[in-house]
Amino acid sequence: MMTYPYRVGFLVLGLALVCAAPLRADEGMWLFNHPPRAYLEKQYNFDATDKWLEHVQKSSVRFNNGGSGSFVSADGLIMTNHHVGADCMQKLGDKDHNYYRDGFHAKSRAEEKGCNDLELNVLMSIEDVTDQVNAAVKGDLSPEEAFKARRAVMAKIEKDSLDKTGLRSDVVALYQGGQYHLYRYKKYTDVRLVFAPEQQAAFYGGDPDNFEYPRFDLDVCLFRAYENDKPAKIAHYLKWSKDGAKKDELVFVSGHPGRTDRSNTVAELEYLRDRGFPYLLQRLYRWEVMLTAFSGRSEENARQAKEFLFSVQNSRKAREGGLAGLLDPELLRRKKEAEHKLREQIAQKPEFKEALEAYSRIEKAEKTRGRIAREYAVVEAGGGFNSELFVYARTLLRAGEERAKPNAERLREFRESNLESLRQQLFSEEPIYNNYEIAKLANSLTWLVEQLHEQNPLVQKVLAGKSPNERAAELIGGTKLKSVELRKKLYEGGTKAVEACDDPMLALARLVDEPARAVRKSMETEVEEVKRQAHAQLAKARFAIEGTNTYPDATFTLRLSFGTVKGYEENGQHVPYETTIAGLYERAKEHHDKPPFDLPKRWEERKDKLNLKTPFNFVCTADIIGGNSGSPVINRDAEVVGLIFDGNIQSLVLDFAYAEDQARAVSVSSQAIVEALRKVYDAGKLADELTGKQ
Amino acid sequence: MMTYPYRVGFLVLGLALVCAAPLRADEGMWLFNHPPRAYLEKQYNFDATDKWLEHVQKSSVRFNNGGSGSFVSADGLIMTNHHVGADCMQKLGDKDHNYYRDGFHAKSRAEEKGCNDLELNVLMSIEDVTDQVNAAVKGDLSPEEAFKARRAVMAKIEKDSLDKTGLRSDVVALYQGGQYHLYRYKKYTDVRLVFAPEQQAAFYGGDPDNFEYPRFDLDVCLFRAYENDKPAKIAHYLKWSKDGAKKDELVFVSGHPGRTDRSNTVAELEYLRDRGFPYLLQRLYRWEVMLTAFSGRSEENARQAKEFLFSVQNSRKAREGGLAGLLDPELLRRKKEAEHKLREQIAQKPEFKEALEAYSRIEKAEKTRGRIAREYAVVEAGGGFNSELFVYARTLLRAGEERAKPNAERLREFRESNLESLRQQLFSEEPIYNNYEIAKLANSLTWLVEQLHEQNPLVQKVLAGKSPNERAAELIGGTKLKSVELRKKLYEGGTKAVEACDDPMLALARLVDEPARAVRKSMETEVEEVKRQAHAQLAKARFAIEGTNTYPDATFTLRLSFGTVKGYEENGQHVPYETTIAGLYERAKEHHDKPPFDLPKRWEERKDKLNLKTPFNFVCTADIIGGNSGSPVINRDAEVVGLIFDGNIQSLVLDFAYAEDQARAVSVSSQAIVEALRKVYDAGKLADELTGKQ
Repeated sequence: MMTYPYRVGFLVLGLALVCAAPLRADEGMWLFNHPPRAYLEKQYNFDATDKWLEHVQKSSVRFNNGGSGSFVSADGLIMTNHHVGADCMQKLGDKDHNYYRDGFHAKSRAEEKGCNDLELNVLMSIEDVTDQVNAAVKGDLSPEEAFKARRAVMAKIEKDSLDKTGLRSDVVALYQGGQYHLYRYKKYTDVRLVFAPEQQAAFYGGDPDNFEYPRFDLDVCLFRAYENDKPAKIAHYLKWSKDGAKKDELVFVSGHPGRTDRSNTVAELEYLRDRGFPYLLQRLYRWEVMLTAFSGRSEENARQAKEFLFSVQNSRKAREGGLAGLLDPELLRRKKEAEHKLREQIAQKPEFKEALEAYSRIEKAEKTRGRIAREYAVVEAGGGFNSELFVYARTLLRAGEERAKPNAERLREFRESNLESLRQQLFSEEPIYNNYEIAKLANSLTWLVEQLHEQNPLVQKVLAGKSPNERAAELIGGTKLKSVELRKKLYEGGTKAVEACDDPMLALARLVDEPARAVRKSMETEVEEVKRQAHAQLAKARFAIEGTNTYPDATFTLRLSFGTVKGYEENGQHVPYETTIAGLYERAKEHHDKPPFDLPKRWEERKDKLNLKTPFNFVCTADIIGGNSGSPVINRDAEVVGLIFDGNIQSLVLDFAYAEDQARAVSVSSQAIVEALRKVYDAGKLADELTGKQ
Repeated sequence: MMTYPYRVGFLVLGLALVCAAPLRADEGMWLFNHPPRAYLEKQYNFDATDKWLEHVQKSSVRFNNGGSGSFVSADGLIMTNHHVGADCMQKLGDKDHNYYRDGFHAKSRAEEKGCNDLELNVLMSIEDVTDQVNAAVKGDLSPEEAFKARRAVMAKIEKDSLDKTGLRSDVVALYQGGQYHLYRYKKYTDVRLVFAPEQQAAFYGGDPDNFEYPRFDLDVCLFRAYENDKPAKIAHYLKWSKDGAKKDELVFVSGHPGRTDRSNTVAELEYLRDRGFPYLLQRLYRWEVMLTAFSGRSEENARQAKEFLFSVQNSRKAREGGLAGLLDPELLRRKKEAEHKLREQIAQKPEFKEALEAYSRIEKAEKTRGRIAREYAVVEAGGGFNSELFVYARTLLRAGEERAKPNAERLREFRESNLESLRQQLFSEEPIYNNYEIAKLANSLTWLVEQLHEQNPLVQKVLAGKSPNERAAELIGGTKLKSVELRKKLYEGGTKAVEACDDPMLALARLVDEPARAVRKSMETEVEEVKRQAHAQLAKARFAIEGTNTYPDATFTLRLSFGTVKGYEENGQHVPYETTIAGLYERAKEHHDKPPFDLPKRWEERKDKLNLKTPFNFVCTADIIGGNSGSPVINRDAEVVGLIFDGNIQSLVLDFAYAEDQARAVSVSSQAIVEALRKVYDAGKLADELTGKQ
């Protein structure tokens, strides 16, 4: 599964990096305003017209909880992955309904179920605002001043754009600050669940098969966008291909890759290898064990924790794959060689003298990061206080303080143009389970003690003379922030109301806020800003040396990838590009129908009705990464042939470098979706809507 | 589950610690040569006669893979836990037989199956050799010299005893070096599996119920000791109680608690809280995730990894409980108070001046430990090279070198008196699975890089320019040490043969041996020896101040505990002392018969035959800890009323302090064992043998 695990509202800015080395074959997560036209023309004889690009762009949908999707009917039907919709299904469930596990099917529009806090974005336009941003950030500013100046100008551009167009407006740093583009989105906040299969079909093979291939997964989910309580009327949506994906065919993927680190310097890669990834994995291992143990105690526990557990397992596998790539000396050798070559080329151009120093500035910044990373992770990034209720408390506390400031000076998530999204999350009606919140908070308070040590004065204050377990129980039991009404009152009342409220979770948020803001400031100015400036210099030098025919590192913004439908060789065996529905039944038999390889009951019953030769999953060489989950795979005619839901294990290294030999994107075949809707789920009406039958 | 997770042959010596503070009620893991006679007499009106003690002692059995047991028939029948026998069951299995999962029942003696590398010890005598040891270790020696002198005199005492008696002879440091006792054991190395239920019955409720109560587990397993290919004739064995355990009855537990840390100084407890436990847990979380993922891929994988996974989960839960105890400020407060009081008392006695300094020496030693612990753990303790094949390689390499030295100068595991046990392990016929070994080794090489960093010259040499995954595959694929024959040849050929062999795993063992021995030496002399001397001084001061009516910290040697059969209060509810077989069926129903709460098939089928009122599990206040697994619970008449298999979650703090309010030892009732043997497993003959029917 390739969900990009951060909420957009809390995305840490500024780690988009300049792209490295000469392009290989089907490499690239291209900008829609800078597509690889010439290459496509030459290699594939494909003309990427403006019209084609606009159509695909406006048919693409971003799921702000970390995935991609696309419009697939004129009535606002949206296709994505089951695992992208999981968050919504999980929240719609209760003790008596487990839609995540059992699936969901609205037989009429009236039965479609609204998802509380889901925001979808459709990219309407891109505008290059690099000059405006650079003009505001003078060359002689200190990193702290530069950071503030940039934040201010970006907030202003966004606010002006929002006021003018009414569209969500985000300034995106591309090429690590080599360019700044203004992205304007149409937002959909009334989004309803239409169809999802049972999780057993969507995630057949479970964690053992995750990131593996061949696969047999129906990882699909359908939503519908509403406006004014009616299905949205959509001009740009993708039509359904009659024939599906063919071997060796050119295909495109339009989606939102979350983040890549391809242009990291060697110092940055070494940081990730030696500190970043091991640290993150340490946290993930701990969560995975805690959530598995919690889930084991009862079915209801398992339902509550399933989605988080799932995302933890998924991240764990992805990071292990990434770390294995970084621990492959060959990858580092190639990176070192490329960096060495570029440094020599830069050295020959006196006008880029500063760029040479950029390398050592980056190295120094990584050392600073190493010093503050733990504190940052537990105190500001929330690792020490993992509970929805703490997130609410902090958001309320800061919302009061930040909204009192001019827009340009606020913490980024409180900028005017983001407040609507913020409110949607803050006032979410999602249910909160005390025992689950206590378990998570106790685990993260223990982690806090471990990271900062028991003697740390902040830790002492946080624990207030209790053990982590006791303190978590006291906080979760005592807070009143479970009430949406109270949260609304506190948000509207601002700082005054928050100050007057003696809620224990608010008190905790208040207690940690000063050190949290301080370490965030260090991270933003001493690490990220320094690196941003250094990378911007490197980017300029590279544009001059290597030309601009390239793409920036992924930033969870819309990108176009392309590739061909083909298998690969592994341990001397050929892995065919495609599986069929018949393969699902064979695999279940091989594993004696034991979980997670057991057949879903419906599939067992409907076997005779199905055309077993229907293609089920397929792979292609398109360049994707986490965040691309739910992206449509389309052919030259922009017709849907598949739905990205995973990459194979060899693709996990794509974080650092594109590879074509074995790395593959894994998709559900369009034919399998229609076949299953009609014959397994009795959802012929939806299949008709997808395929354009009336 | 309370398995003590270290093999005796590799037990790190010297962490036995002096016991703290005034005794509470049923506290104590008492020495058989220093039982709490007066207390038992006064409190329970029980006379612990020499005869009674000798009988119980010689009926008790130590499982050298980390558990306890007892003789329960004149024909050598031995009772222990399923989870203590697990290692043997797992190894007896193959692709077609999974005795661990499915159980085992030898219907005749001919069908009893020999366990390759299981060694059982029965304690025959204890001799106080404190004076001999102290005479050899003069007061003016440096820590390094003192360590060597002590090792030499201990090896000599053991060798002399072995030569004289033919019995396994171990000198045990008690009261952290306050006393040294020579333990002589009769060894049984021909041990055969007789009966085990399916794992589902033994470990009903799985990881979620582990360390919980109420319980419904038949965690039992029967072996038989053989001599000269015939069932051993046993003079001392425990008879079966007709009535089982009664409420409020006095009971005894005779077994081998592995380790406690009750007399740790505050500095030592803080080390465990801040570094020791978090570090160990970090490793356990990682193993648990890796083993769970590996097991998910196929049934055969799961079979191979099950036992290790099980022990990892068990340790994880135990350590989490211990850490939670250390993070309870109340426990530390009490420990600080007691230490403060003792220091003041010592300060008033000029003859114990040195003991006062002992505290700061211990504190300093813990700082040294903090500096070298990582390297020690990965390089010497094997954390960086987790594979049976590496253990073989290192043992062969060192066996050659060490056996060439005088007995007194060898690494402790190569002392003359231990060689037979060592050979038994080294020449084990246990099957080795390449993929499993590769997965474990790749994981631990990755851990090695993470702990020591990629730039470390030793790490570079170990990886030899490969990634951890590649290197692990190359080593496991290339080594020939899977052959028992080769291992025998190399062992017998000594250093010359080992040097002449160019096996890659031997080469790896050779590569790390110098730094491994160096860090072991630092750990032994700069940490353990310093602490041993300091604790010995503290112990003497305490004997003088508090008297000698006390027990030493646990050392995986035979101890007598006692207590009463009774329930406890939890969250305002009374938890009754006993469960019945009926409860098993209720619990399965509550959980809709879903794993791990599903009923074993045999139990489903035989429900009607069973007397559902039969007691199943019960709790008592006896003072136990990991290693006590499989200990018999006996009444005043030394009759078996139960079988220890776990402690509740509140008992996990017993590592640091006895607690009687809620901490409970959990046992299988003797009646449940007989009822199940007769009515579920058609093993009436075994039930007859246990109950003495002919």
